Amino acid sequence: MTERLFLFDTTLRDGQQTHGVQFSTPEKRKIAEALDALGVDYVEGGWPGANPTDSEFFEEAPALRATFTAFGMTKRAGRSAANDDVLAGVLNAGTPAVCLVGKTHDFHVETALGITLEENLENIRASVAHCVDEGRETLLDAEHFFDGWKANPDYALKCLLAALEAGARWIVLCDTNGGTLPREVGRIVCEVIAGGVPGDKLGIHTHDDTGNAVANTLAAVDAGARQVQGTLNGLGERCGNANLTTLIPTLLLKEPYRSRFEIGVTEEALARLTRTSRMLDDILNRVPLRTAPYVGASAFAHKAGLHASAILKDPTTYEHVEPSLVGNARIVPMSNQAGQSNLRMRLLDMGLEVEKGDPALGRILEEVKAREGQGYSYDTAQASFELVAREALGRLPHFFEVKRYRVTVERRKNKYNRMISLSEAVVVVKVGEEKMLSVSESMDETGSDRGPVNALAKALAKDLGPYQGYIDDMRLVDFKVRITQGGTEAVTRVVIDSEDSTGKRWSTVGVSPNIVDASFEALLDAINWKLVRDGAPERPA
Amino acid sequence: MTERLFLFDTTLRDGQQTHGVQFSTPEKRKIAEALDALGVDYVEGGWPGANPTDSEFFEEAPALRATFTAFGMTKRAGRSAANDDVLAGVLNAGTPAVCLVGKTHDFHVETALGITLEENLENIRASVAHCVDEGRETLLDAEHFFDGWKANPDYALKCLLAALEAGARWIVLCDTNGGTLPREVGRIVCEVIAGGVPGDKLGIHTHDDTGNAVANTLAAVDAGARQVQGTLNGLGERCGNANLTTLIPTLLLKEPYRSRFEIGVTEEALARLTRTSRMLDDILNRVPLRTAPYVGASAFAHKAGLHASAILKDPTTYEHVEPSLVGNARIVPMSNQAGQSNLRMRLLDMGLEVEKGDPALGRILEEVKAREGQGYSYDTAQASFELVAREALGRLPHFFEVKRYRVTVERRKNKYNRMISLSEAVVVVKVGEEKMLSVSESMDETGSDRGPVNALAKALAKDLGPYQGYIDDMRLVDFKVRITQGGTEAVTRVVIDSEDSTGKRWSTVGVSPNIVDASFEALLDAINWKLVRDGAPERPA
Repeated sequence: MTERLFLFDTTLRDGQQTHGVQFSTPEKRKIAEALDALGVDYVEGGWPGANPTDSEFFEEAPALRATFTAFGMTKRAGRSAANDDVLAGVLNAGTPAVCLVGKTHDFHVETALGITLEENLENIRASVAHCVDEGRETLLDAEHFFDGWKANPDYALKCLLAALEAGARWIVLCDTNGGTLPREVGRIVCEVIAGGVPGDKLGIHTHDDTGNAVANTLAAVDAGARQVQGTLNGLGERCGNANLTTLIPTLLLKEPYRSRFEIGVTEEALARLTRTSRMLDDILNRVPLRTAPYVGASAFAHKAGLHASAILKDPTTYEHVEPSLVGNARIVPMSNQAGQSNLRMRLLDMGLEVEKGDPALGRILEEVKAREGQGYSYDTAQASFELVAREALGRLPHFFEVKRYRVTVERRKNKYNRMISLSEAVVVVKVGEEKMLSVSESMDETGSDRGPVNALAKALAKDLGPYQGYIDDMRLVDFKVRITQGGTEAVTRVVIDSEDSTGKRWSTVGVSPNIVDASFEALLDAINWKLVRDGAPERPA
Repeated sequence: MTERLFLFDTTLRDGQQTHGVQFSTPEKRKIAEALDALGVDYVEGGWPGANPTDSEFFEEAPALRATFTAFGMTKRAGRSAANDDVLAGVLNAGTPAVCLVGKTHDFHVETALGITLEENLENIRASVAHCVDEGRETLLDAEHFFDGWKANPDYALKCLLAALEAGARWIVLCDTNGGTLPREVGRIVCEVIAGGVPGDKLGIHTHDDTGNAVANTLAAVDAGARQVQGTLNGLGERCGNANLTTLIPTLLLKEPYRSRFEIGVTEEALARLTRTSRMLDDILNRVPLRTAPYVGASAFAHKAGLHASAILKDPTTYEHVEPSLVGNARIVPMSNQAGQSNLRMRLLDMGLEVEKGDPALGRILEEVKAREGQGYSYDTAQASFELVAREALGRLPHFFEVKRYRVTVERRKNKYNRMISLSEAVVVVKVGEEKMLSVSESMDETGSDRGPVNALAKALAKDLGPYQGYIDDMRLVDFKVRITQGGTEAVTRVVIDSEDSTGKRWSTVGVSPNIVDASFEALLDAINWKLVRDGAPERPA
């Protein structure tokens, strides 16, 4: 016997309250369609009339399987629901469902609204009745409900019952300032149900101000609530709303929810969850949170030596669900905690077969350990790791040698008396017996100075003689710097991502107190890795 | 009647399992000292013998008020505890407490360890007894405990009781793969207590794989556990460990915990929580998570609209705790009236009194906004912010002008045929009518190349004519680089911390695609701020 549990998404409304987030109309449409494909039951589109984007979005409403919902607020005192222009704006959006925020905390009614408790009850009752009369599925968002209940449970309950009697399909209990803890949420939802609001008419809306938005939602479901409100990636004001990207897999994959509830998200849709989460980050131009439950890049990354070897034996030892179920993947990175079996796996992935027990395995681990002590990190810089391993295995071909380089960074007035900066790099390379000198400057096509590392990268790639054909399609696509060890003893770690015309990407690392030199090392690794990968012929020194 | 609740921090051990995290020994020491100042009861430093950094850290153990703890594992089968070299390595670290991980899940004992259930019990018993004999406070980390309990509660309990009988001070229940949900955690902890392990000997160790690490911890405390394990900023493998930065304020500020428990963190320490959290991100060179509960930059940020105006009337409407209690601050959008009053407060803190309604306030807000769009950040760089404000107010004296500079970075063979790198900087400065040329190189006292920024800083500070006396006691104490915007359009942000002989520290920021130029800008701000602060006389250009 399963029960239906409903998912209500408010990414486009409450999610848009996030500091710095402002969706365009096409972005709203794209997100609504992704939510629909995921299988949520309600998509709340915004507040028609509150701002131009929201109004425009509702004017050309997307065709959704989900119930499209407009947000608004209960009518103001001193006028009828039919004569309230704000409410009319919401109804004019013509959505099948309407969600109205109303106050249930006596303190807010009297101080923020400045009306009597009875007037507020009447506003709720009349507004809900009006929407129902207009043929809309109506939800009441009970703002500040948990604080209201703690202050005056009788009045808070009266507000809910007023909406219910007026025909509301759902009463949504909101923890508006996010301060309520899971035990309290569970207890209060039980009390509300005992007070006469059936669980299958109750929704839960939480915020993450104590890091408990997900747990508060589950506590409400455990207590009987049957609608869950949240946002993709937990977007939302302050610390965010309940994260649907976390809740959906928990409700679908984990007990007791898996056996107990029927949810609109299919297994196929769940397998697109990671992609859906990344799509939202792309729209927001945000770096995806590595540690996000289920969908983060680190969610199934295993580092500890003990863990990594156990994972090789049986993934369930350190994974509570199979990563592919949510469209994610397992990562076993290289690090100083890794054991030999982990290392052999890694090397095999790179096409380097090494016998079990080969002493080179120990040498590689020692070398990696020593380098990590100096500030290197091979978690992401797989290409540099491969070069270290090849060196230890005696399988690193010699291609060329950099005899010297010189980079000059200058800031001075140009002929128009404006301050400009410019970098210039000279690199001297020896391939076999041939010596090559190259020079480049840091100016890009727009005349902007891109700095000394840019000049150095260009000079290094300018003339590699017989290898030129192998590196012509390489380009630097990302560049990260971090100072390991603070203070004046600072050591710089540079990680460079390169790409070639096949779309292949690889990462290399360099470390030095001198940032230019650290960058140079990473650039050199990037070229050498490409020459190895493409099977360039060796040129002994 | 309050009960003591203990905090156990594992940032330096389990936190180091994070993908991409590798602390150096000085960083470990800095974090340990910050944890100690915060008031945690236990600081777990790592696994002595497992890697060179951990071993080095234990060799020069910091002096802490907290109980310094070494991590290790129970002895292997087929040898005595006294003859187990791994266990010996842990005990040799000489810490007052030792935390041993041991298996309690029958499946793992038989398949991963490949020993009998009885052998594993004996390993736990003998290892704990040996550590207790050696005079150490001993903790058992019961790995995979919740899964083990679900599979075979009798055996899981036997493991705990074996440790308890052998003298363990704490039995820590670990949700190793992070898959257990709060209700289950609460139920199982109750059952464990009923099974004979007293709550005041029970700890809880959770992971955030379902977004419930904090809630699982609270559920265990509700059920009777009295030790909470976690990490700063929720660092840790996969999705991270229970976040102490979130748990500490909840336990101190919110009911029922506030009245029920006594915790080692004082109100004064709590007010430094946000700073402590940022310090860890600084060490990791991570962008602090804006949405982090309590300490995130957005945790008390209110977007324009209903909330922002309600906040002005009464902050409790949308804030569950007062931000200053955790060292955080309220943010209301800068564009509105509240933005201006906040700015006036901030300027007053710097000794700059500005009348309400002064149009300069709007100019400063606009300028800061525009600069933040370019990649500047004034969260920490207060000194640069003050210079921007002074400029807009017409209260920035002119001291000197840098006419030009040139930095050369070279890598070449020295006379002993060894590759060396060296940087040299020339700076030309004009003070009044006087022109000064200075040159410096990047070599430090030990003969190591400290890089181009070091050379530039030394050249700039070498001869400032009449101002030399003001800057002679300045030194660069920290240097952070972050690439804002990825890819080839990368822009570099450099933040420099300076200090003078009075112990005063100030931070400045520079932004440019050219890292040397960004550093130069931050260095220049650092000097100018010091001249302003010390009231150096103006020298018109």
